[in-house]
Amino acid sequence: MDIALPDLTFDPALKEWTLGLFEALRRMSFDGVGISRATYGEGESGAIALVAEAARREGLQVAHDAAANLVVTLPGRRPELPFVACGSHLDSVPQGGNFDGAAGVLAGLMALVTLKRAGVTPPRTLKLFVLRGEESAWFGKCYLGSSALFGRFDPADFDLRQSGTGRTLAECMAAAGADADILRRREPLVRAADIACFLELHIEQGPVMVARGIPVGIVTGIRGNVRHPKAVCRGEAAHSGAVPRWLRHDAVFATSDLVMRLDRHWEALLEQGQDLVLTLGIIGTNPEEHAMSRVPGEVRFSLEWRSQSAEVLEGFAGLLREEAAAVERSRGVAFDFGAAVPTPPAAMDPRLAAHLGTLCRARGIPYEFLPSGAGHDAAIFANEGVPTVMIFIRNEHGSHNPREAMDHDDFFLGAELLLHGLLTAPAALAATGEGPA
Amino acid sequence: MDIALPDLTFDPALKEWTLGLFEALRRMSFDGVGISRATYGEGESGAIALVAEAARREGLQVAHDAAANLVVTLPGRRPELPFVACGSHLDSVPQGGNFDGAAGVLAGLMALVTLKRAGVTPPRTLKLFVLRGEESAWFGKCYLGSSALFGRFDPADFDLRQSGTGRTLAECMAAAGADADILRRREPLVRAADIACFLELHIEQGPVMVARGIPVGIVTGIRGNVRHPKAVCRGEAAHSGAVPRWLRHDAVFATSDLVMRLDRHWEALLEQGQDLVLTLGIIGTNPEEHAMSRVPGEVRFSLEWRSQSAEVLEGFAGLLREEAAAVERSRGVAFDFGAAVPTPPAAMDPRLAAHLGTLCRARGIPYEFLPSGAGHDAAIFANEGVPTVMIFIRNEHGSHNPREAMDHDDFFLGAELLLHGLLTAPAALAATGEGPA
Repeated sequence: MDIALPDLTFDPALKEWTLGLFEALRRMSFDGVGISRATYGEGESGAIALVAEAARREGLQVAHDAAANLVVTLPGRRPELPFVACGSHLDSVPQGGNFDGAAGVLAGLMALVTLKRAGVTPPRTLKLFVLRGEESAWFGKCYLGSSALFGRFDPADFDLRQSGTGRTLAECMAAAGADADILRRREPLVRAADIACFLELHIEQGPVMVARGIPVGIVTGIRGNVRHPKAVCRGEAAHSGAVPRWLRHDAVFATSDLVMRLDRHWEALLEQGQDLVLTLGIIGTNPEEHAMSRVPGEVRFSLEWRSQSAEVLEGFAGLLREEAAAVERSRGVAFDFGAAVPTPPAAMDPRLAAHLGTLCRARGIPYEFLPSGAGHDAAIFANEGVPTVMIFIRNEHGSHNPREAMDHDDFFLGAELLLHGLLTAPAALAATGEGPA
Repeated sequence: MDIALPDLTFDPALKEWTLGLFEALRRMSFDGVGISRATYGEGESGAIALVAEAARREGLQVAHDAAANLVVTLPGRRPELPFVACGSHLDSVPQGGNFDGAAGVLAGLMALVTLKRAGVTPPRTLKLFVLRGEESAWFGKCYLGSSALFGRFDPADFDLRQSGTGRTLAECMAAAGADADILRRREPLVRAADIACFLELHIEQGPVMVARGIPVGIVTGIRGNVRHPKAVCRGEAAHSGAVPRWLRHDAVFATSDLVMRLDRHWEALLEQGQDLVLTLGIIGTNPEEHAMSRVPGEVRFSLEWRSQSAEVLEGFAGLLREEAAAVERSRGVAFDFGAAVPTPPAAMDPRLAAHLGTLCRARGIPYEFLPSGAGHDAAIFANEGVPTVMIFIRNEHGSHNPREAMDHDDFFLGAELLLHGLLTAPAALAATGEGPA
């Protein structure tokens, strides 16, 4: 490292300034119940304008790219080297919370403003990406802005319609200032090789850190998943009173049997230190023919498993096939899982994760390593080959609801980690002899 | 026994005559898909008129009671003694089969006609009850005619409306010739003490006899049941990716766990020779809030268990409570089973069942003892204290559908057993020193 910055902490005035921005965001997007900032809608655009104006007033460079993402820049001493990036999103689900996305944007802004106000020119150029359209709630697609960044926006999506207004994505993007021609040509708006690394701060969307009492998390990977949206177990409907156990083909018992067999594998895999979550979010007998006194002949369900490990994702598919075959034999039913929809996991850079752990220990920040179960823009960067890591902030009640609750002190701890991570990450990557110098 | 009737078998002419009646019933009530004979509607009344006319032509006494049940009588040598009864129903579910109910009526008619044509006066008076309204499909209530027989018809049911036509039960009963005033006063139409015993022949509505290859069944009891129509498991909804196993309160996994625990008890009870069937005919997550990527916070389901034994019915409720409590503790959910709706079992008279077994062995009829899982008019007689037994005929594809399939030879075997049962049951009951003489 060619820089020593021992006094870089947040002063009370900067903390007040940041909390004021959170409050301004909340006021402008409160919908009566929670926070609504529609993707490529007035909510998201208004929030981006607020952040852009705040950055401009601090003397930071402000630009908008062809996808109408906001890019805030603080030039470094060696602008010819790959730049260091952070960022997150400002859209929200309808009736959502104020911190999902915005926390990462304002933490990044704090980092740049801290340096600017202190008159420090960082070794590398720092960029804050305020990304459009992370939430799928509005157009049924997520990561619109970050995908566009790398030329991965699918022009077919221009015809998607915004929930609520019914306006097309093309209309909404044009209104937000995007350049459709560039997106249509799938031109990258930035070269992955020009990004030294990407750090995203985000509230945790699960309950792990609250349960463990840890304010800051370092993300080791973003879980991929395999989904079977339309699985079915077919048995044989029959009179519940007149058919004894040995002649039944009961789809509810068979599905329960399968679920418990998979549950035992899940337990065993966790004991072995593997990462896995397993969910049947939807299950049901057919309302058109079920009855209290009818042995159910059919159960439909969704099945989803997630893991940071592609091997675990694939291995679990094998366990599913084996156990389903065993239940089919013993209970006289047939499972049809339908098409599998896979999403690959996104590995966080282990050097960056380890480095953030070192920074936490040095600065006395309580932390733990954990996976991200939800997807994030960071996965897009990681899958482009950009060394990427995420910082999670403890958050009560999960996300996508107005009750999400992030403690300000936890946020400032995480933002402090982000600031120091941005300044030291390239050196940490270089020290291993593997990463970009 | 004071009578020896060695030559009482069915001659080919009588068999032809009976098959002709089955065919006439089929023709008059075919609805294009299956058989429809509406309770207290034209279908049921037409079928009763057909049977009454056939009985009258054979010289049997024909009468209709205040509930418009048909009563066919063959007087015995000692009319002052309690009479021997058989019977079943002639209504059907919409698009049902031709044998459910009608088999028992025509088997009883065959028995009386056989004796009449042979010039045999039986020791006791024999009565065939052709009972109204056994199926609940038309007015939502079953056993209307047999309930009325014992003064158990509920006048509030006069206002029930027939599915399809919307006519009230009062209108339909009046059109069928019933006497509303007598029913309203809840006057019994027959005294239970005047009935020596009641035998009902019926097709099996389950697959047991087909699976075992046995043509004739002797019913040991009609299963009672306990139903929880609206049970619910409440856990906690959460993000499927972000919540690990140890922090989940997954209602689908918890319900599956409960089902498998109950399944193991069911297996164990069967091994001990207990009678039980267990069904969750309805199950489902809440469509208003479930999603593929949401840990389900709620599962609603129905729960029903049936047994011939009141002790097993009650004991299973205890097992359910224990296992639900164990799942609640281990998975952090709460079960609410709602109100329990109990229907007591109806015991068949063990002396009559044993006697029918003896007759089968003597006559070379392959038989087995089995429970009835479905309810029958016989349960009404049994619960009035009338010694009662049922004869089941092997039947493919279950009942309440047009595909029910009863072999004629099986039917004649069962009808032969009914005939000899009617003639010898009082003596069998008297031989034990317990029953009516």
